[in-house]
Amino acid sequence: MLNPVTPEFEAQLRAVLPAVVFKNPTAYLAEPRGRWMGQGFVIAPSDTAGVAAVVKACAQARIGIVPYSGGTGLVGGQVVTDGPRPVVLSLDRMVRLRAVYPAENVLICDAGMILADVRKVAAGVDRLFPLSLASEGSARMGGLLSTNAGGVNVLRYGNARAQCLGLEVVRADGSIWHGLSRLRKDNTGYDLRDLFIGAEGTLGVITGAALKLMPRPAVQGTAMMQVASPAAALDLLALAGRIVGDGVSAFEFIHRQGFAFLSEVGPDVKMPFATVPEWCVLIDVGLAAGQSPEAVLAALFETAAGAGLVADGVIAQSEAQRAALWDIREGIPEANRRVGSISSHDISVPISLIPQFIEQAGAALDAVGDFRINCFGHLGDGNLHYNVFPVQGKTRADYEAQRSVIKDVVHELTNQMGGSVSAEHGIGRLKVGDLQRFGDPVKLAMMRAIKDAFDPDGIMNPGAVLPPAGV
Amino acid sequence: MLNPVTPEFEAQLRAVLPAVVFKNPTAYLAEPRGRWMGQGFVIAPSDTAGVAAVVKACAQARIGIVPYSGGTGLVGGQVVTDGPRPVVLSLDRMVRLRAVYPAENVLICDAGMILADVRKVAAGVDRLFPLSLASEGSARMGGLLSTNAGGVNVLRYGNARAQCLGLEVVRADGSIWHGLSRLRKDNTGYDLRDLFIGAEGTLGVITGAALKLMPRPAVQGTAMMQVASPAAALDLLALAGRIVGDGVSAFEFIHRQGFAFLSEVGPDVKMPFATVPEWCVLIDVGLAAGQSPEAVLAALFETAAGAGLVADGVIAQSEAQRAALWDIREGIPEANRRVGSISSHDISVPISLIPQFIEQAGAALDAVGDFRINCFGHLGDGNLHYNVFPVQGKTRADYEAQRSVIKDVVHELTNQMGGSVSAEHGIGRLKVGDLQRFGDPVKLAMMRAIKDAFDPDGIMNPGAVLPPAGV
Repeated sequence: MLNPVTPEFEAQLRAVLPAVVFKNPTAYLAEPRGRWMGQGFVIAPSDTAGVAAVVKACAQARIGIVPYSGGTGLVGGQVVTDGPRPVVLSLDRMVRLRAVYPAENVLICDAGMILADVRKVAAGVDRLFPLSLASEGSARMGGLLSTNAGGVNVLRYGNARAQCLGLEVVRADGSIWHGLSRLRKDNTGYDLRDLFIGAEGTLGVITGAALKLMPRPAVQGTAMMQVASPAAALDLLALAGRIVGDGVSAFEFIHRQGFAFLSEVGPDVKMPFATVPEWCVLIDVGLAAGQSPEAVLAALFETAAGAGLVADGVIAQSEAQRAALWDIREGIPEANRRVGSISSHDISVPISLIPQFIEQAGAALDAVGDFRINCFGHLGDGNLHYNVFPVQGKTRADYEAQRSVIKDVVHELTNQMGGSVSAEHGIGRLKVGDLQRFGDPVKLAMMRAIKDAFDPDGIMNPGAVLPPAGV
Repeated sequence: MLNPVTPEFEAQLRAVLPAVVFKNPTAYLAEPRGRWMGQGFVIAPSDTAGVAAVVKACAQARIGIVPYSGGTGLVGGQVVTDGPRPVVLSLDRMVRLRAVYPAENVLICDAGMILADVRKVAAGVDRLFPLSLASEGSARMGGLLSTNAGGVNVLRYGNARAQCLGLEVVRADGSIWHGLSRLRKDNTGYDLRDLFIGAEGTLGVITGAALKLMPRPAVQGTAMMQVASPAAALDLLALAGRIVGDGVSAFEFIHRQGFAFLSEVGPDVKMPFATVPEWCVLIDVGLAAGQSPEAVLAALFETAAGAGLVADGVIAQSEAQRAALWDIREGIPEANRRVGSISSHDISVPISLIPQFIEQAGAALDAVGDFRINCFGHLGDGNLHYNVFPVQGKTRADYEAQRSVIKDVVHELTNQMGGSVSAEHGIGRLKVGDLQRFGDPVKLAMMRAIKDAFDPDGIMNPGAVLPPAGV
């Protein structure tokens, strides 16, 4: 069992760690949507040695540690509502750019550096750091790596995992792994980097990262195309692969319900079509110098139209038009928040099963009740945000009784199709039960073995990802 | 301690596993260059259940298991020369293509499938499986993944790790992890896939793999350009990033010594330049439809010439000319074998330090003696094959006394520069000492913890990667 932080332990930390700043906890304990209120003693070391000192003190006292990065996670990985009061270890004073090597396409930073700042530094040396998501103005690299964040460019560049070359990590015993490699190839031993990436702080605290930069595409282009069906969208994706090669950087799926919500509650966006399509896709391409994205997208559209895949389309002719098309996609999550979902799901299935999933999930939910479904997301990755909303005139509160049934229907179907009930958000504390229920038992046994080997007292982010040992 | 395979154990396996084929061991025990002769009882199950049954029997009897894939590895991971006689578990009857999903860009196969066959199946559905290396006609997927193989397309597509979506693995206790995911995104728990990839069979036996296919580039082109220096080669690489985007699929470095060896001992290749350059690079690009690789490469050459980076160049105007340029690069390892190296090194350093490495390694070896150095390889990945040869008129045998000094000089310098002493070949048994010597102690402690948690009796590929427990 873990011990809670006591006033004596607080005093001990203050005495031995004068460089560590003790924070007013309020800002660090609330879940971003206000769903839960956590507890904890919030401290913010300014460097890796400080993190190691805090972890050592907690290890000696058997006190839990919750690593806190940008706090933008949606599955409660950063929020502990009950159990012994933990230390909340904020990274927000560890924001240094350590080095940038443009000739190597490498950037090394503290784990508290904010994603938007990383992207700016990369752009400043004419490089691209591709990871991009709605919360990039506040999400920090440590959390983005610990949760293996996704976003809109995964199709082309992979998720956070694919954009990391090396890590610096403070282990549960306070020892420091100096793994900030700038190497592209290194086959000397087990891949520990990828073990910490996605472990959500349960195996150690990421304190620094060596990130992989990319050449910036010389030219970029964007189109929105009406597709006949989800199956036609998949055919269009394959066609885009043949015509554009791997220059397709985003392939986002939008349902009519998304446009309807935008019209109903905003935010205001410019509608590209006179009649709202049942399904459409937003395609982004990044190409080499000398190519015309508009011409490539037009060629794609014409071939697709000839095959009966697309009915209408808009190809951006300027940066302003590109931004306007992206405003639609990026406005949908905000519109969803304003409407208020009954239940939201971040699922993935094998890409070719998406049409079947959409059909079967819709039919199964019809049997449960009357809802509005906004299904959108990263089609190119097989990742759908499948969100269920009240019918007009009702609110989220009117559906309390049905919420868990809806969730079960969606997650059971996802699992039957070999899918994932957490494509990009992670497990946190919200989905611990889902992982136990749907996870392969041999996988769970291996995870438990690693957790016990790396953190035998269970002090690292207790209760996240795995239930406490012995439960 | 492990037990050796006894005649009784052989008889027991034959009785309980009638479907397992017992092989004439000779072909499976020799190191590919004939450097060592191994020992073992060779068996070849035809499916995953058979592998699990063999592993269970070995676990009960505490008998070591050496997974044997294509047998092409160069660091002795597949060869046990001493200690208790192990079971050698060949995958060569597990060659089934399990499924291919062109719409998902996924191929699922048994771990014994040969790389060239995987590439053929992918091409047959108009896709690319990018992993490509000299031994692809005999290397099998299980070994390629277990060693995280590299090759010539890492710059663009990553190594084997980046081309795998999921695994099926038989663990040391005989349990089976069913992890053959077709998903692009799945953030449910620790990344076990990447732990088995590169573990060289020391944590379990990979029996199946879900592989990621790519769109085939619509058009491809190749050029060879003379560069003024290693530093100029790096500037050219950066320029290629700006002009070609991420369409650069290979960027290989060739020294004059490579051309000299080809002239001296063959194989016969067509020389592209009247005067052999000190340094040159081989560049491959794959582009979208409508682009001209020749025009893109010509634009790159002209810009580079304007900046004083390149002096002369050849741009292939046909597939035959492309093949002729690649023949030079691919002939070099064979020429090296014919000359006979004193000591070969598969190292990587941070890319921008390559010019410094070449200069300092050359100077340090000058102080040791008179050699010919053939330095070539995957410049875009920071991975050099830095091989040291006798001067003309002498042979490898004349340098026995200097071999370990040469190796130490190269590996020490690599380590001082933050490099890797095994960029793509792995640790096997040959480099166990190097890993202990150069590896971060915290990394080694974590590796040991994982090994002990996954394989407490140490039966999986004993002696590879890590020394036996307690040593």
